[in-house]
Parts: sequence; C-alpha cells; structure tokens
Amino acid sequence: MDTPTMNAQLPVIGLMLGDVTGIGPEISAKLLASHALQSVARVVVIGDSRVLALGCEDAKVKVESQVYPSVDAIDWSRDEVPLIDLGNVDPAKIKRGELSAESGKLTGETLKHMIDLALARKLDGISFAPLNKGALHRGGWKYHDEHQMFAALTQHQGFFGEMNVIKEFATFRVTSHVALREAIAMITPERITAAIKLADDTLRAAGITKPRIAVAALNPHSGENGLFGEEEIDEIIPAVEWARAQGYPVEGPFPPDTLFYLAVKRKKFDAIVCMYHDQGHIPSKLLDFEGGVNVALGLPIVRTSVDHGTAFDIAGTGVASTHSLIRAIEFAEKLTG
Amino acid sequence: MDTPTMNAQLPVIGLMLGDVTGIGPEISAKLLASHALQSVARVVVIGDSRVLALGCEDAKVKVESQVYPSVDAIDWSRDEVPLIDLGNVDPAKIKRGELSAESGKLTGETLKHMIDLALARKLDGISFAPLNKGALHRGGWKYHDEHQMFAALTQHQGFFGEMNVIKEFATFRVTSHVALREAIAMITPERITAAIKLADDTLRAAGITKPRIAVAALNPHSGENGLFGEEEIDEIIPAVEWARAQGYPVEGPFPPDTLFYLAVKRKKFDAIVCMYHDQGHIPSKLLDFEGGVNVALGLPIVRTSVDHGTAFDIAGTGVASTHSLIRAIEFAEKLTG
Repeated sequence: MDTPTMNAQLPVIGLMLGDVTGIGPEISAKLLASHALQSVARVVVIGDSRVLALGCEDAKVKVESQVYPSVDAIDWSRDEVPLIDLGNVDPAKIKRGELSAESGKLTGETLKHMIDLALARKLDGISFAPLNKGALHRGGWKYHDEHQMFAALTQHQGFFGEMNVIKEFATFRVTSHVALREAIAMITPERITAAIKLADDTLRAAGITKPRIAVAALNPHSGENGLFGEEEIDEIIPAVEWARAQGYPVEGPFPPDTLFYLAVKRKKFDAIVCMYHDQGHIPSKLLDFEGGVNVALGLPIVRTSVDHGTAFDIAGTGVASTHSLIRAIEFAEKLTG
Repeated sequence: MDTPTMNAQLPVIGLMLGDVTGIGPEISAKLLASHALQSVARVVVIGDSRVLALGCEDAKVKVESQVYPSVDAIDWSRDEVPLIDLGNVDPAKIKRGELSAESGKLTGETLKHMIDLALARKLDGISFAPLNKGALHRGGWKYHDEHQMFAALTQHQGFFGEMNVIKEFATFRVTSHVALREAIAMITPERITAAIKLADDTLRAAGITKPRIAVAALNPHSGENGLFGEEEIDEIIPAVEWARAQGYPVEGPFPPDTLFYLAVKRKKFDAIVCMYHDQGHIPSKLLDFEGGVNVALGLPIVRTSVDHGTAFDIAGTGVASTHSLIRAIEFAEKLTG
C-alpha cells in the first residue's frame, strides 16, 4: 500500500467508464481490480456506480469502491476506489451491444461534468474508456468527435488537435473526423504548420529533446510532381519549407505508402504528421491494435483515451483488453507532469 | 538441367529489366543468376544487353546469356538466358539514381515492344522490374501508370484494374493513380461492382473456390451513418448489396482503420476492395514491403510486376531484394495456367 504522503504527489485522473453499451465498463473494472496504476496516478471514477457494478460482472472481478460527494472529500489514504456517483445511467434501461442515443446523451452529460471538474482544477486530467461518437451525436451532443466537444465545452479558441500514440511512433493529424472529401479541402499550410508545431511541442514535453518529424503527402506517390494532384506543391511543401526555415526538425512530404514502413523498419521518425484520419489510423491499428492511445492536444485540460471503439461485438463477454486504457492513464500522468 | 520436353510445357515470360536508373537491372541479374525460376517459367529478357551487364556488375553476379533475333528462334534446350537485344538503352548515357525523361522514353519503347510480342502470342506473359511512372510520363508516354499504358496499347475497352498481392491478402482498387480528390469523385456503384467482380474472378482463377471479399469504406468510421460523408450511403452500400444479391461472397463496407487488422489477425478475408491507392498500399507495404506483387487484371495479356519503386537511394549498391520480382514471375505463370 502506498503511504498517504506518496499518494498526494500523484496527479488526480478522472476515469470515465465509457459508453455503457460497449466494453468500457468491463475494461474499467478489470483495470481498477488490478491496482495496476497505484503508483502512477490517483484515479477517481466519475460515473454511475451501477455501471461499475455491471463492468465487474462482465469482467468477473470485484472492485471495492467508496462513494464521495466531491473530489475534495476523497480520503486518498484508503484502499477503495473513490467514485463520484452521478446516478445518471441505469444499465437496466439501456440495451447493450448496439448504438443507443439515450446512452450517448448520458455519456455526454458525464463528460461535461468531468470537464467542469477539470476546469475547476479538481481533476488534473481526464481519461476515458471507449465512447461511441454516433451515439453522442444522436444523443444531442452535436459534435463530430469528443475533441470538438471538449474544445467547445472548454471554450477553447484556436487550433487543437490530437495525437495517436503506439509503441512505434506517434501520429498527428491535419484533419480528423470529417468526410475525406472535406478533409482534402481543409489541407492548408496554416493547418499543416500548426500540426507540426503541436507535434514538436508535445514530443519535447514528453521528453524527446530532438523529435524527428515526418510529414506525409496526400496523394499517391506524393502526387508525382503534380501528375496526380496539386496539394503537395500548393499546400504541403510550402508548409514543410516554412517549418524547416523556422528550425523545426521536419522532413517531407513522403509518399504515404512507404512512409510508415520507413518509420517502423528504419526507425527514422518519432512522429508522423498525417493529412487525414485513416492515413495514420490504418497503419497504427495494424501495428498495435490493442495498445493505441488517443491524446487531445492544444486544449486547456489534459484528456486521453483508448484508441479503440466500443466493440459491440464482444461487449459483455469479458474478453476485452485493458492495455489501451492503462496506457491512456499513464499518458495522462505524463502530460500533467 | 530441365529436359527440353519439360521446358516446352512452361509458359514463356518476357522479363523487362526495369528503368535503368534504378534497382531493376541489379535485381533482374541476381534473379537470372540464381536460376530460381527454372521450373516455373521459360524466361526471356527483352531489353538491352548492356543494361543486363550493368545489372551483373551492380549485383556482382555472372549471367550467361545468348542473344536471339526473335522469340521463335530461342533454343530452350540451352542453359544460357535468352535475350532479345533491342539495343536501345546505353547505360553510359544515362545518369543513374535519379529520374530521367530519356530513360523513361526508352523504357516505354521496350514495354511497347513487349506488348506487341504478347499480342502476337510470342510471349505468354510480361513481368517487369521497377519502372518510374514519372520518367515514363516525362519521356512522352502520357499515361498515369503502366496499367493505363497497357490498356491503351492493347486497345482494351472497358473496365480494367490491378491487384496487389501480399502473403496476407490481395487488394483490388476502385481507383488508382489519380489525385485523391479525383479518386473520390470516381467512386460509383459501377466501378465498385466491377472491382468486386474482378476480385472474385481473379481469386477463383487462382484456385480459391470461395473467395471471401471485404469492401472498405471511404470515410473515417465508414462515415458514421452519414455524419462524416455520404459516399458509403450513396455509392458503396448499394454496390455491396447489389453484389450480394447476385451471389458474390462480399461483405462491407468496413471502417478502413480496422479492416486490415481484421483481415490479418482474424484471417477473415482473402481480398479487400479498396477505394483509393494508399488505402490498400499503406497496409500492404507495411506488412510485406519486399514481397508485394502487382498484377494487371482485365487486359488481354498477362502482366505482373514488382510492387516497389526504382529505389534511387540504393540503386547500384547491390543490396536490393529479388523477392518481389521472383513472386511477380511466379504469379504470371499462375495466370497463364
């Protein structure tokens, strides 16, 4: 058992159990039962105690928890998992293993509650088990993803982004949860240089003193000098040249189909700036499906999550891996440092 | 040594040494020196004997060759590699390790010669070491890729496509060497169903009696029911439903970022129909960089090639792998069967 003195130095991370329809409750319960993060962070569950109980049942584990009325009231010297019980999600009323607008609505309410706690500095960071973007949206949270939601609810102005971390490399995206057609129209030197800066800042903050950053092209073969597309010439090359002139350690644009191979096999790059969602997500999920972490960047609060979905096909079966959730909380701790 | 009788049953494959500026001559020489394909095909080199000599020098191997005036004149009972010497490419006049329009022009001439031989049934198939699409184009062959060139020079009408084969799966593309912006506009039910049919036909021809075919989505998360793009609803789902109604063993569309993982880890699919070039090429090159094979489909002649580029950075150094070229010729043999 940690001493209260040691404990008090660890950041307080709020854990959200994920959308109740998916594997979130189960992997959260497994993680909490394992005490794997006892020396990493002080974890408080923000959610509904009935959802945690459901997760314990799915995972066939026992989690001793203690309900508190507020984060300030938590007695961190005790062994039980502290829980702020919002009493808002009754699992008996929601069908699992499929998208539920009602569940999305409640998930959004829980996130909003956590954002308010983080803005009030009651939480040092927020981590969450898988949400369902479609459910959030149908539940009335009219954002394309949780990044947009967090930016709006923290009243953030300016560029923000996300990082996806696997053991081989981190990816940063110029565009994210938008139609591919729309993503292409959003690729501008301004957004690309903002993503390069975010990559450089984040990797330095994570302890890499000279991060090696690669920028992916948009078109096949980098457009073959304009033969298959102009975006490299008009948007990407100017951005890379500007960033290099400013001293950023960046190279590119590289043909997308060989870049990830180079990054892995020749260990050439720490970070890859991707033009669209799947460009980075296809290789990242292929390389490290269960371990990927999603990190919000540029927002006033620390936010990390698993990088996989609600996995409706296996929800409730007890087989889901906690690997990504553990790494998400570890990463949140790193960013609060 | 093979007996002449056995030999005569093997298909005659024309080997093109690739663009002289790259690693093509070297890997061709290594392959020919190894006699690795003696029991697979009767290989005749179509090109310039000086380029083959250069390849032998790069690879530090010796290839005994015999020049013939025509394919019909070849004495297949002899051990030397038969060569039709076009006498068109003088390596002393072309700078290596960089794009050369002159070399592209000559490469195109050699390909045209080979296409004419194949149309005249003097060759059963054509395989080639890496070309450079940009060099071909600048050399006056105004096609986006060799598939378009082969289609034009064989006066092929109608849909054609290509397959990329790695050991894990084969990918078929709805669009190929065009700007991503343009690729999106080309995604129609007609093109998708044509690619599904091509996948089904090809895999059956290659001996898979019940091929399992997956169709990738275009947008992130398959568009989340229209939240990030309409192409799934308007183009892809109707195509998949039509194909299923016709009895094709096809599923999808699947979110692109998890599909390749499913195909590999759960061995769920033999073929994946991809919407654009990098969607299939990013995972294929990550999984099997040196072994991928590119196969033309729907054309009146058999054509296979390596699935990697001219690798200017290592041209002339003798380190390039023959793996993909060997598999390309093996695949050509399979398709002539």
